[in-house]
Amino acid sequence: MADDFILTCPSPIGPRATIQLAHGGGGRLTRGLLEQVFLPAFDNPALAARLDAAVFDLGGARLAFTTDSYVVDPLFFPGGDIGKLAVFGTVNDLAMVGARPAFLSAGFVLEEGLPLDDLRRIVASMREAATQAGVELVTGDTKVVGRGKADRCFVNTSGVGLVAAARPIAPARVRAGDLVVLSGDVGRHGIAVLSVRESLAFETSIESDCAPLAAVVQGVLEAGVDVHCLRDLTRGGLATALNEIAMDSGFCVEVDETAIAVTSAVEGACELLGLDPLYVANEGRFVAFVPPEDVEAAVRAMRGHAVAKDAVVIGRVVEGRGSVVLRGRLGGRRWLDLLSGEQLPRIC
Amino acid sequence: MADDFILTCPSPIGPRATIQLAHGGGGRLTRGLLEQVFLPAFDNPALAARLDAAVFDLGGARLAFTTDSYVVDPLFFPGGDIGKLAVFGTVNDLAMVGARPAFLSAGFVLEEGLPLDDLRRIVASMREAATQAGVELVTGDTKVVGRGKADRCFVNTSGVGLVAAARPIAPARVRAGDLVVLSGDVGRHGIAVLSVRESLAFETSIESDCAPLAAVVQGVLEAGVDVHCLRDLTRGGLATALNEIAMDSGFCVEVDETAIAVTSAVEGACELLGLDPLYVANEGRFVAFVPPEDVEAAVRAMRGHAVAKDAVVIGRVVEGRGSVVLRGRLGGRRWLDLLSGEQLPRIC
Repeated sequence: MADDFILTCPSPIGPRATIQLAHGGGGRLTRGLLEQVFLPAFDNPALAARLDAAVFDLGGARLAFTTDSYVVDPLFFPGGDIGKLAVFGTVNDLAMVGARPAFLSAGFVLEEGLPLDDLRRIVASMREAATQAGVELVTGDTKVVGRGKADRCFVNTSGVGLVAAARPIAPARVRAGDLVVLSGDVGRHGIAVLSVRESLAFETSIESDCAPLAAVVQGVLEAGVDVHCLRDLTRGGLATALNEIAMDSGFCVEVDETAIAVTSAVEGACELLGLDPLYVANEGRFVAFVPPEDVEAAVRAMRGHAVAKDAVVIGRVVEGRGSVVLRGRLGGRRWLDLLSGEQLPRIC
Repeated sequence: MADDFILTCPSPIGPRATIQLAHGGGGRLTRGLLEQVFLPAFDNPALAARLDAAVFDLGGARLAFTTDSYVVDPLFFPGGDIGKLAVFGTVNDLAMVGARPAFLSAGFVLEEGLPLDDLRRIVASMREAATQAGVELVTGDTKVVGRGKADRCFVNTSGVGLVAAARPIAPARVRAGDLVVLSGDVGRHGIAVLSVRESLAFETSIESDCAPLAAVVQGVLEAGVDVHCLRDLTRGGLATALNEIAMDSGFCVEVDETAIAVTSAVEGACELLGLDPLYVANEGRFVAFVPPEDVEAAVRAMRGHAVAKDAVVIGRVVEGRGSVVLRGRLGGRRWLDLLSGEQLPRIC
C-alpha cells in the first residue's frame, strides 16, 4: 500500500506543498493534480471522461468544447510560434473526440514591454492557422501585467466544435485486439523548441511538426472506420499518450519500437541531450485505436493526408492492467512508464 | 485631422512601440489594440459585433461563446477571489447577450512555488461559484512556468451558453428615447481589491460586488421586456461601459449623476485615492437599455433579484454622436470621456 501511494503521488502534496514545474509536464504529477484537486471539485460526467475535449448536448446539438493555455518559450521557433500552436493545439483537441472544430476564442496575458510587432506577428500567425484549419476566431480578451509578472506573452485558446462521429471516441471503447496506428515520426516539436531555447545548432535544422489534424480525422471517419480512441501526442509525447489510454481503458498496450519513426536528426539531438524521443512533445501527431477489421481502411485514409502520410501500425491492445510495453529493437521488452513530469518544461 | 489621430491613438503604435499596462485597462488603448491589431486580423461578423460574447448558430442551436483571462492582484480580496471572479465574470459575459450560461472551461497558468493550498482554495471557490451560477466546469488545462515568469496564478475561463433572448441584445439596437437602468451602486469591486493591494484600512470594510447576473437577466427577459442592450460594468466601470455603447450605437447617452448610487465608504475611499467611482471596476453590476414603454417592467423584474434590488433609471439615449454626458449634482453638464487606460491595473 505504501508503494501504491508512492506510485500515485510521488511528491509531497500536504498542506505546505507547492506547485512544481513538473506539475505542468503532462506526466504523473499533472495527473495527480487532476485527480486530487480538480476532479473532486468539479464532479460531472464530461470532465470525468478525461478526454481532450468535453462532449455534451446543448440546444439539440452534440458539441465538443476544450481549452488550452500556451506558455511556450521561446515564442517563435522553427516551424511555428505560440500563435500557430495555440490555434492548432485547440483544433486538434476537438478533432481527438471526433468533432469538426468551428469557433475559437483567444485570451492573451501580455507582459508590459512586449514589442507590439511581436504581438502583430503572433496574431497574423493565428489568423493564417485559423484559415488553414477552417475555424473562426470569434471572441477574445487581453490582459496586461507589469514587467516581471509574466513572460512576454501567454495565450489561451478555447474551442467549440460539432461532434461528427456517430459513436463516442474514448478510452472506454478500447478493446483487446484493437490496433494502434501512429500518424508519423515523433519528437520534432520538442527538439525544435529546445534547439532555439538552448541555442543549439544541429547539422540538419529540425522543424516543429505543428499541424491541424481535424481534416485527417474527418477522413478516417468518412472512410467508415469505427474509431475507438484518438489522442494527440503533445506534452509527454507518444509514451505519455499511450499510458493515459492504457490506464483509462484498463488494458495493456504493446508497441513495437522498430515501427516508430524518429528522424536521424531528432535521434541525434535526443542522444546528445539525454532525452527519450518517445517522451518528447509533438504538435501534429496522433495515435488512433481501431478494431483489426478497420485498420487497413484507417491507414489508407490517414495516408491520404499530408500530415499523416507515413501512418503505420505500431502496436496492439492486449489484456492487462493499464500499462504500456515496448518490444525493443533487440527483441527485449520494457515497461514504457509514465514520467513524473515533462523532460522539457514550457514546450507548449 | 491631427487631433482626430491623437484622440483615437493616444500612444505611439509604430514599429518600436511596446505593450503598456494601459493596453489592458479597458479604455482607449485597449480599444486601439482591438481596432488596430485584432479586428483587422480576424474579420468575421461575430467578432466585429464587439459584444461581451460571440453569438452564432452551430448544429441548429443558437449559442453564445466568450473568454476572459483573470490576473487580479491580490488573488484573495474582501468579497471574493480570482476563482469566483473567473466564474462569475464569464457567466456575466454570456448573460449580457441574453444567453443562459451552461458550460465553462478553466485554464490555469501557475507560477512554480504557488502553495497548493492556495490553488485548492481557488478551485473550491470556483466550484461554489459554478454551483451558484448553475454552470458546469467541464474541461480544463494547467500549465506551470518557473519562478518570476508569472505572478502566482492566472486563470482563463471560457463559457458556452444557449441564447434565450428572442431578439438580438446589442448596441446596434439602441434607439433615441431608450432609458438606461443601472442595477445598483458602483465602485465596490475596484476599491475592495485596491484596499488589500495597498494595505489600506477604511472605516467600513468594502466588499467586492462580485455576483452572477444570468438569473436577473433571465428574469427581465421573462417579464417580456424588449431589452435593446446590456453591459456589465467591469474594467473601466460605468463610464467606460456607457462610452462603448454610445460609440458602437452612434447615439449620445445622458446620465444623471444624482441617480447613480455610490456608498459613502466607496466615495470616501475614492476621494482619498483621487479616483472617480464612475470609472472603478464592478463585477456584479450592469446597465440595461430598454424602450420607455418597458422600463417599469424592467426595473420591477430587476428589483426582484437580490443582485439588482436597487435598480434605478439613471439616464436616457438622445440623438448625438457617440458620447456620454453627465448632468451633475449642481446642475452642470460634463463629458464623461473614455480614459486612456484603467485607473487601477490588474483589477480583474
